[in-house]
Amino acid sequence: MDMISIIEDKKQGKALTREQIGAFVKGAADGSIPAYQLSALLMAIRLNGMDARETADLTMAMASSGDMLSPKVDGVPVDKHSTGGVGDTTTLVLAPLVAACGGKVLKMSGRGLGHTGGTIDKLESIPGMKVELPEEEFVSIVRRIGCAVVGQSAQLAPADKTLYALRDVTATVDSIPLIVSSILSKKFAAGAKAIVLDVKTGSGALMPTLEKSVELARAMVDIGAHAGRSIVAVVSGMEEPLGSHVGNALEVKEAIDILSGRTGGPLKRVSLFLGSQMLLASGLADTEEKARQMLEQALDSGAGLQKLKEMIAAQGGDARVCDDVSLLPKAPVIYSLKARRDGYLSGVNGTALGLAAQAMGAGRKSKEDQIDPAVGFVMEKRIGDFVKAGDTLFTLHAATLDSARETEERVLSALSFSDTPAPKARLLYALVRPEGVTELAE
Amino acid sequence: MDMISIIEDKKQGKALTREQIGAFVKGAADGSIPAYQLSALLMAIRLNGMDARETADLTMAMASSGDMLSPKVDGVPVDKHSTGGVGDTTTLVLAPLVAACGGKVLKMSGRGLGHTGGTIDKLESIPGMKVELPEEEFVSIVRRIGCAVVGQSAQLAPADKTLYALRDVTATVDSIPLIVSSILSKKFAAGAKAIVLDVKTGSGALMPTLEKSVELARAMVDIGAHAGRSIVAVVSGMEEPLGSHVGNALEVKEAIDILSGRTGGPLKRVSLFLGSQMLLASGLADTEEKARQMLEQALDSGAGLQKLKEMIAAQGGDARVCDDVSLLPKAPVIYSLKARRDGYLSGVNGTALGLAAQAMGAGRKSKEDQIDPAVGFVMEKRIGDFVKAGDTLFTLHAATLDSARETEERVLSALSFSDTPAPKARLLYALVRPEGVTELAE
Repeated sequence: MDMISIIEDKKQGKALTREQIGAFVKGAADGSIPAYQLSALLMAIRLNGMDARETADLTMAMASSGDMLSPKVDGVPVDKHSTGGVGDTTTLVLAPLVAACGGKVLKMSGRGLGHTGGTIDKLESIPGMKVELPEEEFVSIVRRIGCAVVGQSAQLAPADKTLYALRDVTATVDSIPLIVSSILSKKFAAGAKAIVLDVKTGSGALMPTLEKSVELARAMVDIGAHAGRSIVAVVSGMEEPLGSHVGNALEVKEAIDILSGRTGGPLKRVSLFLGSQMLLASGLADTEEKARQMLEQALDSGAGLQKLKEMIAAQGGDARVCDDVSLLPKAPVIYSLKARRDGYLSGVNGTALGLAAQAMGAGRKSKEDQIDPAVGFVMEKRIGDFVKAGDTLFTLHAATLDSARETEERVLSALSFSDTPAPKARLLYALVRPEGVTELAE
Repeated sequence: MDMISIIEDKKQGKALTREQIGAFVKGAADGSIPAYQLSALLMAIRLNGMDARETADLTMAMASSGDMLSPKVDGVPVDKHSTGGVGDTTTLVLAPLVAACGGKVLKMSGRGLGHTGGTIDKLESIPGMKVELPEEEFVSIVRRIGCAVVGQSAQLAPADKTLYALRDVTATVDSIPLIVSSILSKKFAAGAKAIVLDVKTGSGALMPTLEKSVELARAMVDIGAHAGRSIVAVVSGMEEPLGSHVGNALEVKEAIDILSGRTGGPLKRVSLFLGSQMLLASGLADTEEKARQMLEQALDSGAGLQKLKEMIAAQGGDARVCDDVSLLPKAPVIYSLKARRDGYLSGVNGTALGLAAQAMGAGRKSKEDQIDPAVGFVMEKRIGDFVKAGDTLFTLHAATLDSARETEERVLSALSFSDTPAPKARLLYALVRPEGVTELAE
């Protein structure tokens, strides 16, 4: 199979055959096709698109480019995936909560380049926590406890590793067929039978408009269903950080606070919604109401927090952080950033806040960067809140005074205020199932 | 300047600024931008295009990415360039003929990957001929004799070297802004003041349709004129090989045959037309009729052949080949391929013939391949000719009997015959000048 003719066909806008797709995915996985040819093809795919059949073939070819797991966990292996947002730590709330309801949550997560670390970077802020486990140990923990969260194995979907790294540096991230195949190939390879997707919409999301976000969600649900998975996608808003805590240890703390019943807010609401979809997709509940009751009971009884403790202990971490969050890493500078005027908080530039967190050391700019687990910030006010001059807007957790000062400026310029009441940010937009799209109330 | 944002802008269909174009051309020349980013940008340019201002900026940036020559040759430095065809050896006829009329032909030529070698590969089939000369020696030969043909200096338009090599393997050859900038940047850098372009049209040409070929010709003429060059483009047909000889030494032989007055045909007719345009562009003739008379006199008097001898001798070659073509390399197998049926030769698949010549060893498949100068074939019949079963269609010059047998099959399947008279292939379609396009009669 000649790579030049594959690029040529996609450049001409033709649909690629399954054989052509198989050939370039194999070449991406084994390194036999040079990066400059792959990137030309990625740009041709970005600009000329792929139809549903091509996207499905691409997803399957990428999934089978490496190991294909069939985890024996005495239940339906369920996974959830978010397309990424600031302060979005639903996994740390959901995995133990769903496990407490009888779910089998096998979560493989990337480290990711971005504003803050990925889920496994967050977990690593727990002293002793191990996130690189052999596949057998990973599956054995899930079988025993019901959940585990580890780094993605290099043997899963190796073609995605190559293509993902190239997309990041060739402006070809925002392509629906490329996003779909990247996300689902990893889920399929990891053996997930039930999949809940959280597709973010809004200024800082992968897809800029609600319409495009729904299109992406539909594409994923169609291909997942076609491949025999129980799959749904939630389209949720990203107008402000989902949780109030942004930063690695800070986000672990917020998850523990939610599981302990000490705090609520948007992160809890979205987590409960996603969790109920996971129970439905796993067949552990047959109505949304029942699923929600199960989750609330797991919260109220402390069973969710107990699962998190068990998971942390099983992965070598210090489970005492669940009872005493002060055991998590702490930043030397804690600074209360005050409002300089009265007004309604009317807008938050999520991307700018994310970059501020990254600049503090909470995220990586390049693969080699070290993350500082302790730094980040807590939003003390949310969009729609009235703020008086002198109120604390944000609490900054910084490594140095200079960093706190720099972050103060960045944060203030990311916020907008108005003199008239501003609406709260919308959390949930749509639920996308194989049979159609339902608009969500909130 | 951030390469990702340059790719992003072109992906979005925006026009790139002069600064953005300068930045990626510099990065292509000095190797600081990785090939995978350049190839993503090339595909975005191929699919989203470039306007006239961008194309001009790209051409100028590439021209000035290396040395800029200002050859002192006591006259107007003139060059011609063909977009490439099978059996197209006009340079070897033209350079000495125009020099015999007082022209100063500075021809830098690529080796090229393709069906047969480039012009300098053809010249290397002459025993002793040197085609890699220092710039000063090259210019000094032109000053003395009026013409020289050498390999392109690595110091000229180095950005083009990088981009051209990438385009070849990423299906991004057929882009007007990329073709224009590649061709003209080298001409500008080499100091040509008068430029005659031969843009091929037809199935095996860079541009598949006449309309696209004229569009390419206009784009080049506009940018050349804008840069103060005396420039015209001829759009000529490529329905069958231009000369009857295909192969390196064989094409040198045909050029010598034409300059000796022993042979005529399409190669001679197109060469005379291009030559007259070169004399006009150089200011050595003021009407096409006068230019043609000058060229015919140079042919009839033997002055053109004499110039070829002088050029070969000046470049270290054995000039006796001009009087005795049997001194050129000869293939061990010479085979007369006979027609198997009566009929009119109605069509020739030029690309297939070119690939047949390449398979014989006349051209390179990869940069490392060695060319066999002796092999190739002579078309004994042309489109429109009536052929009787048993007539010689082609004479094959092969390295082995197996190669001859394989070539016979390839050649036969590249030919079409009809029982009713078939028209001759059209040679000249249009003349494109800065002031407009003139359709040509033949």
